[in-house]
Amino acid sequence: MIESLGTPPVADHAKAPTWRHRHLLDVDQLDHAEIERCLGLAIEMRSLRDRGERLDLLRSQIVGLAFAEASTRTRVSFEVAAAALGAQVVDLPIEASSVTKGESLIDTLRTLERTGVGTIVLRHAASGAPYLAARSVGARVVNAGDGTHAHPTQALLDALTLRDALGTLEGKRVAIVGDIGHSRVARSNIHLLTALGATVRLVGPPAWVRGFEDWPGVSISHELEEGLRDADAVMALRVQLERDAGGGVPTLREYTARWGLDEERMALAARDAPLLHPGPTNEGVEITPELAASPRSLIGRQVSNGVAVRMAVLALLAS
Amino acid sequence: MIESLGTPPVADHAKAPTWRHRHLLDVDQLDHAEIERCLGLAIEMRSLRDRGERLDLLRSQIVGLAFAEASTRTRVSFEVAAAALGAQVVDLPIEASSVTKGESLIDTLRTLERTGVGTIVLRHAASGAPYLAARSVGARVVNAGDGTHAHPTQALLDALTLRDALGTLEGKRVAIVGDIGHSRVARSNIHLLTALGATVRLVGPPAWVRGFEDWPGVSISHELEEGLRDADAVMALRVQLERDAGGGVPTLREYTARWGLDEERMALAARDAPLLHPGPTNEGVEITPELAASPRSLIGRQVSNGVAVRMAVLALLAS
Amino acid sequence: MIESLGTPPVADHAKAPTWRHRHLLDVDQLDHAEIERCLGLAIEMRSLRDRGERLDLLRSQIVGLAFAEASTRTRVSFEVAAAALGAQVVDLPIEASSVTKGESLIDTLRTLERTGVGTIVLRHAASGAPYLAARSVGARVVNAGDGTHAHPTQALLDALTLRDALGTLEGKRVAIVGDIGHSRVARSNIHLLTALGATVRLVGPPAWVRGFEDWPGVSISHELEEGLRDADAVMALRVQLERDAGGGVPTLREYTARWGLDEERMALAARDAPLLHPGPTNEGVEITPELAASPRSLIGRQVSNGVAVRMAVLALLAS
Repeated sequence: MIESLGTPPVADHAKAPTWRHRHLLDVDQLDHAEIERCLGLAIEMRSLRDRGERLDLLRSQIVGLAFAEASTRTRVSFEVAAAALGAQVVDLPIEASSVTKGESLIDTLRTLERTGVGTIVLRHAASGAPYLAARSVGARVVNAGDGTHAHPTQALLDALTLRDALGTLEGKRVAIVGDIGHSRVARSNIHLLTALGATVRLVGPPAWVRGFEDWPGVSISHELEEGLRDADAVMALRVQLERDAGGGVPTLREYTARWGLDEERMALAARDAPLLHPGPTNEGVEITPELAASPRSLIGRQVSNGVAVRMAVLALLAS
Repeated sequence: MIESLGTPPVADHAKAPTWRHRHLLDVDQLDHAEIERCLGLAIEMRSLRDRGERLDLLRSQIVGLAFAEASTRTRVSFEVAAAALGAQVVDLPIEASSVTKGESLIDTLRTLERTGVGTIVLRHAASGAPYLAARSVGARVVNAGDGTHAHPTQALLDALTLRDALGTLEGKRVAIVGDIGHSRVARSNIHLLTALGATVRLVGPPAWVRGFEDWPGVSISHELEEGLRDADAVMALRVQLERDAGGGVPTLREYTARWGLDEERMALAARDAPLLHPGPTNEGVEITPELAASPRSLIGRQVSNGVAVRMAVLALLAS
Repeated sequence: MIESLGTPPVADHAKAPTWRHRHLLDVDQLDHAEIERCLGLAIEMRSLRDRGERLDLLRSQIVGLAFAEASTRTRVSFEVAAAALGAQVVDLPIEASSVTKGESLIDTLRTLERTGVGTIVLRHAASGAPYLAARSVGARVVNAGDGTHAHPTQALLDALTLRDALGTLEGKRVAIVGDIGHSRVARSNIHLLTALGATVRLVGPPAWVRGFEDWPGVSISHELEEGLRDADAVMALRVQLERDAGGGVPTLREYTARWGLDEERMALAARDAPLLHPGPTNEGVEITPELAASPRSLIGRQVSNGVAVRMAVLALLAS
């Protein structure tokens, strides 16, 4: 039952043509109209929050947060988003150890949904875990990041942030710099940015940008300067500090020297080209503190847009 | 102050003759009429939730969850139940280490109730800890499982689930299979099932079913086939995987071979006899995955009934 | 937007002359009128809660609890207080490890406030961390205890509790007994009690009461009997059990023998002089269990006043 408290536009939007997806597992399941609807609803959610209005679209519903991997911003973002829609938020204690025994993850989720949890937000170290969950439980499943595979709400919030800055993504060149191969953020962004008409340049050492040679709309560059030149926007990825170098992979020091972003290098990009980063940043490694704090940096906007995007996703799935 | 928002039946029920118990420590404190009232209110709570209605019986009240032992389903169940009644739920950080120094548990609870916590839901590894708490603090205390002693809300939800399936418990034969002696679930069920007119068969190796020889309404069987034959319902207990064998206690492999439940063995019971398990199950140990997923299995119903039973208990204690 | 639900006095109070502080970092930032306003509002909050009334002064607002040090009562107290004002409360996972790298604490808080957190309640092992946070983030910051420096809401609740008992603090003698030098509770109390007209006696072994010789309104005593004599109120501090003796610092046994408070020693103080303790107590070390449970002891009142004081502080900062 959807109730609206003096907020007909959102209620209308959420009701609109039936939303055909029960789960959000990755952005590749969304067609162009669905992406637009999701981003449009996020903008409405954002302005409602800016006006301090409350929604009760998820009143009487329970959203369970099942984070088997440590997370700060994504977890808090979903918690704030769900509560802002009037839902009860409960913590679903999923152990990281269940990575190795998929059954027990599913058993736990199946049990917990019987308490009335209607939507499960799942972060898991195993790529594909949310797909297994979606096949196995009755609740709606939102993928909040699975292994190296996908992070759909991150890609949606990045797209919203880029459109805020650039107006449109149609025909824009977006450079993604870093360890593309291990990044669920990069993967989901490649799908979504190209679906919205952008071309994507993957920029990094050869060992980190393999496997995307034939993706439509995607080009690869092993030279930072080439990759940044005239880019309309740049997205830096977090370097995993714990990852060992070797096998063609640079050490941290080498990475920073050759691929680290600073204001000087960013000057190769288009004038005022925005910089995004999914966070948390390793300042001094993949970007300098000065760049992170510069006007180009939209890192803060990404976080606030994240709440709006997650409100939109939760509302659409429940509609 | 009890408020009702368009839900007079529940408010009436909760107000009815004064509920004389301040705490729920075990089912043996409840007389027959009180058990019926509790189960009846749980059924009302269940249908209210099914209709998506909200209650505010505990509005302005704070329910504290003090779980000194790990728990997934019981904790989430109480959290959902308390919030569904409009209460604020707070986590009361009780350390398992306070097992060894009862004083500090009580000191902590005494302190925390001064913040306004009106009801404390306590899970503790020490049998009897909730009794000590009830004597020592001003707040209402609900026993959410204490050591090997009692688990009253589990027994109530089991009784509700069995009555849903069997119509009545009067004259029914319920077999409980496993380590009865260490099971708070079994103890509370023995009390409640016999109080509701059932006879209970305790089924397991001798070392696990000692000490119940003289309980009225209870029989003991050291042969699985004998124990299951014509049983109207079967309840499997969780085998504690960490418990060492020896002293007449079987190894896990021996236990599964001789006492593990599967569909073939269940065929000895009455036609369609339901199977219960308090969870979490060790599939492949005390029951097979096929049996757990079979139509006999009411494990999912137990969990959903658990929320309704806990809503009823919280509402009655606060009435 | 401040809404009042049939509670005009509080709303008026919170609106009154503009509250000029965005943060509460220590009591020394408050002038006399502001202290009175804060304590007066706490009394109103307390009576509203006693009548079971709810406030929505913080409706649509998010209060984040960032506790980098373990805490039981302070954390629960702020959680209850914020929820009682209608706020959403979210846990902000701040790691103790960020003690050593202030930057990452600030980065995390900056990120999290972008999710909409308007007030950050910060407990941190590093003295001064809340000041850094207040300079660095846009959110309001409440110091919930920083290292050995300050604990302003504790001092406010102590002052409220003492005035409840003594009527006024003007001209009263308050003895604080224990390890003053390492105590944020003592430091904030010295400021606040003297600001409210009391004189403060610091009582303890020389190594623990150094550095306060020249504070106005403060005297020092290295003899317990001298320190307690005719005191109008006594505040015991928690002895840190983990702290090693040596360098003039007594062992625990020596401390208890020479400085531990019991009913006999308390008889030196003024008739019925109240005893306070910030908790958790080490019974048998700095005070006897009998004294903690005696009518003099206001420890329970301190906890319940803590919720009222924190409601007042959160409401004033948001006004």
